[in-house]
Amino acid sequence: MPIAETPVRLPIPPLPRGFRVAGVHAGLKRNPTREDVTLVVSDLPATAAGVYTTNLVFAAPVAYDRALTPGRGVRGIAINSGNANACTGARGLDDARGMAAAAAGLVAASADEILVLSTGIIGEFLPLEKIGRGLERAAAALGADDESAVRAARGMMTTDTRPKLAGATFAAAGTTYTLFGMAKGAAMIGPRLATMLGVLLTDAAVEPADGQRLLREAAETSFNCVSVDGHMSTNDTVLLLANGAAGGSPLSGAGLEAFGRALTTACEALAREIADDGEGATHVLRIEVRGCADREEARTIARSIADSPLVKTAIHGADPNWGRIVSAAGYSGVRFDPAQVRLRLNGTLLFEAGAPVRFDADAVSASIKGARETLIELDVGPGPGQIRFYSSDLTAEYVHLNADYHT
Amino acid sequence: MPIAETPVRLPIPPLPRGFRVAGVHAGLKRNPTREDVTLVVSDLPATAAGVYTTNLVFAAPVAYDRALTPGRGVRGIAINSGNANACTGARGLDDARGMAAAAAGLVAASADEILVLSTGIIGEFLPLEKIGRGLERAAAALGADDESAVRAARGMMTTDTRPKLAGATFAAAGTTYTLFGMAKGAAMIGPRLATMLGVLLTDAAVEPADGQRLLREAAETSFNCVSVDGHMSTNDTVLLLANGAAGGSPLSGAGLEAFGRALTTACEALAREIADDGEGATHVLRIEVRGCADREEARTIARSIADSPLVKTAIHGADPNWGRIVSAAGYSGVRFDPAQVRLRLNGTLLFEAGAPVRFDADAVSASIKGARETLIELDVGPGPGQIRFYSSDLTAEYVHLNADYHT
Repeated sequence: MPIAETPVRLPIPPLPRGFRVAGVHAGLKRNPTREDVTLVVSDLPATAAGVYTTNLVFAAPVAYDRALTPGRGVRGIAINSGNANACTGARGLDDARGMAAAAAGLVAASADEILVLSTGIIGEFLPLEKIGRGLERAAAALGADDESAVRAARGMMTTDTRPKLAGATFAAAGTTYTLFGMAKGAAMIGPRLATMLGVLLTDAAVEPADGQRLLREAAETSFNCVSVDGHMSTNDTVLLLANGAAGGSPLSGAGLEAFGRALTTACEALAREIADDGEGATHVLRIEVRGCADREEARTIARSIADSPLVKTAIHGADPNWGRIVSAAGYSGVRFDPAQVRLRLNGTLLFEAGAPVRFDADAVSASIKGARETLIELDVGPGPGQIRFYSSDLTAEYVHLNADYHT
Repeated sequence: MPIAETPVRLPIPPLPRGFRVAGVHAGLKRNPTREDVTLVVSDLPATAAGVYTTNLVFAAPVAYDRALTPGRGVRGIAINSGNANACTGARGLDDARGMAAAAAGLVAASADEILVLSTGIIGEFLPLEKIGRGLERAAAALGADDESAVRAARGMMTTDTRPKLAGATFAAAGTTYTLFGMAKGAAMIGPRLATMLGVLLTDAAVEPADGQRLLREAAETSFNCVSVDGHMSTNDTVLLLANGAAGGSPLSGAGLEAFGRALTTACEALAREIADDGEGATHVLRIEVRGCADREEARTIARSIADSPLVKTAIHGADPNWGRIVSAAGYSGVRFDPAQVRLRLNGTLLFEAGAPVRFDADAVSASIKGARETLIELDVGPGPGQIRFYSSDLTAEYVHLNADYHT
């Protein structure tokens, strides 16, 4: 498929120095224009960090990568879509290792220098031969141009309608560094599919422990602030590779802080893209909760609102139904005083001091209809804890995609 | 509306001695054939118990009833549908008291001898005049026959497609007692509507503390084991009145136990009816979780499965997608060993020992298609904790009802 046909939302960010990527069709997806195997290679050994699903039922690639991150000497990531390698027992772990070994052989590395990511159907064994042949062709196609980046991002996609890319630059001690990110996920959803995956690459040198800490912090305000259907995947993984190809010693002090900010910016952009591309979504819900004791309480309230089918259908119907929003906050488990709650929807005050407020419902409804993003602002008290959370609306199309279209 | 036109699932249970009920149309609902005000009267002062929503944002009638239960001397319950009297501040509480006073004046009682229940739109003030006129007509129509019972149950309905009734008899010390129950709820859902309500009436004499304890226990395995969309209402209330009209001293020992069993049976039947009548539902999900450390852990796992949009759409699509079920258990927050998990769907083993099992997917799919109820059995270990939980599938009709049909 010519990449001109691929809708790409964000500007395509440049790859950092010393990274090459490729995405090819290897036959895991039926449609031959859909890439399903992606290879990411670092010409220099990179430090690696990873954050993973907290689901007790986690997939083989999660187990495999967890053992290798944070760490050093990583040469690449082998990725497939169409099969999650989840709930596949001991053979699944062997297969994850086999996939890493296949990629390692192509770039003169050892298996434990390659990380793996899988997403797709749960409970079927990986078609290792197909993936091996795909990795061979990917290794021959590696590049650092825009088309390679888009094809690599497409190779991670399942029910996503478009690849998700984000980038940033940052400077430290006179050197300008590049950060590249790609992710997939129409959240944790899809016909028999699951998972969000993210890959962040930088040419800065970052110590493994620093990379791990900053990646975890970035995930807290990005990938951990997005929900389409509240169903946590078995495969969720975000990986960071830092190869130092731009030169300079490992980042510290202000340089490390600049990197952390760039990482957070890129992760937040990718996370918003995931909510925006939620299956069947016609609206993105941007939920800002403020005035809590701490950020975790704000997250809990925001998630309760984000996951309520009643809130999600109300926004789909352009209905400024504040009762659903306030009651979803009320059952979140976080204690607050309802008399102190203030709710705004697209800037209009709807509820305050425990009682409804007069407002122009038609105007608010029109503001929901007129924009892709709906802003829900909930203040629950005087505390410092706040969060920004993204979700998508719930539509009949979501139901059709997940009930009627079998694989 | 002739009650012959009203589909009633269960046999209409008889009212206990000393209770009369009525349901009338008072103009809160637009359709003049829909009852929207119900009056329940006990000829003798009854003991009363209540269990309520745990939502921080709770409605005025919940605050009002909480102060009176458990208690003695209760003469009746005034009920309206079409307006929840929720998020209505101090005036809402005055209105709840005004509604009780209006009913009290009709049966020579005082306001604090009448409990109130409201369900419907959130954030609008009660139309007290309409309700007062409705209560007058209801008081004139009180009866103990089948039609009165059905009309009373219809007066609680919002988006329910049918009234929900259940009854039981039990014996103690040579006396046979009657228990009558009615409930409403297409769960906590509906266009701007909310709430499940339940009313249990018995002619046994029950001490308030005993009634409260047994009602709470019955709710634990019935109304607390049902979910349509996981959205907890501001108004959820279940009330029990025991008027002693059958004679005998207050139940104790074996008699109290027999009453507890009857109460549980009736509550479980009503709870299942609520899941079955879930908005847009084409299937009831009966989720049995076993092998947990205790019942609460089993409930947490069952609720996680029951609320997953992916599980609910899979059952709607007759798709034996065990990966969605196992992964929903995995993110419930309860610790278990995935290698010990065993999952059956409609009796067929789908997953065991951490790996998929060969099964006839077409046959299992046909079994889902062929029945209203789908049985999901999940064993997670050797523990004694277990639960039975009901949910409904997620359909495009649910989305239409909650997004497209505004009040």
